[in-house]
Amino acid sequence: MDIPGQQARSLFAGARVARLATADDEGQPHLVPVTFVVDGESVFFAIDAKPKRTRELRRLRNITANPRVSLLVDEYSEDWRQLWWVRADGSARVDADPAAVARVARRLREKYDQYEEVGVGHAFGPVVEVCVTRWTAWRYAP
Amino acid sequence: MDIPGQQARSLFAGARVARLATADDEGQPHLVPVTFVVDGESVFFAIDAKPKRTRELRRLRNITANPRVSLLVDEYSEDWRQLWWVRADGSARVDADPAAVARVARRLREKYDQYEEVGVGHAFGPVVEVCVTRWTAWRYAP
Repeated sequence: MDIPGQQARSLFAGARVARLATADDEGQPHLVPVTFVVDGESVFFAIDAKPKRTRELRRLRNITANPRVSLLVDEYSEDWRQLWWVRADGSARVDADPAAVARVARRLREKYDQYEEVGVGHAFGPVVEVCVTRWTAWRYAP
Repeated sequence: MDIPGQQARSLFAGARVARLATADDEGQPHLVPVTFVVDGESVFFAIDAKPKRTRELRRLRNITANPRVSLLVDEYSEDWRQLWWVRADGSARVDADPAAVARVARRLREKYDQYEEVGVGHAFGPVVEVCVTRWTAWRYAP
């Protein structure tokens, strides 16, 4: 069963984690969980400052080579009648502008207390804005 | 922090849901949650019989056009010190052979009681085997 558009956005925005799929210029998909905030028709997430791992860089490299991304929110339940998911397909853009980074970092800290608790001193690097061109949603219907 | 290979496979195999990323021949990623079973270095999932929805077909069309896929298992926790994820990258192949479908369907029914409870009479269509070429795993380390 489909879910109406506004409800799909609300479900997505309220979720705690999304999975980000990018693809390199040869079509190899890449998947990683991300924390995020939604603002209107955009989804924002941040890259850690000074990423030591190649996988952080790979995400950015993929987006630069191919801005098309997909983000999925779903919560698994053993009661399958509770299952639902929302997908946001769109175009991603990396933004290293300090004002943009500060704005997204503030929104992420508001949504996730953990950046203060667990990630004390956590520093945000460039941020990514995904301009969503299509929301798709599904829920279980017998 | 990385997770050793055998432990990564076990964590992945024990999870209840994975997210599947495919990409079409133009590099547009596509994401959907899937139930699955692991057998050795392969991950299997099934397509519902007689899919009415274009998104079911899109998944198959993408795999036919571009067999490279990525599967992610992660469980979100509000205690970020518990966070971990395992990713399986590999090559997918659609198999509509009745014996293969029956074998995967039996494994799925063994893992998920819900196919009998909620999905009474659930019929499985073609199955997909992902031959995993790389397991990547991460867990939180302060």
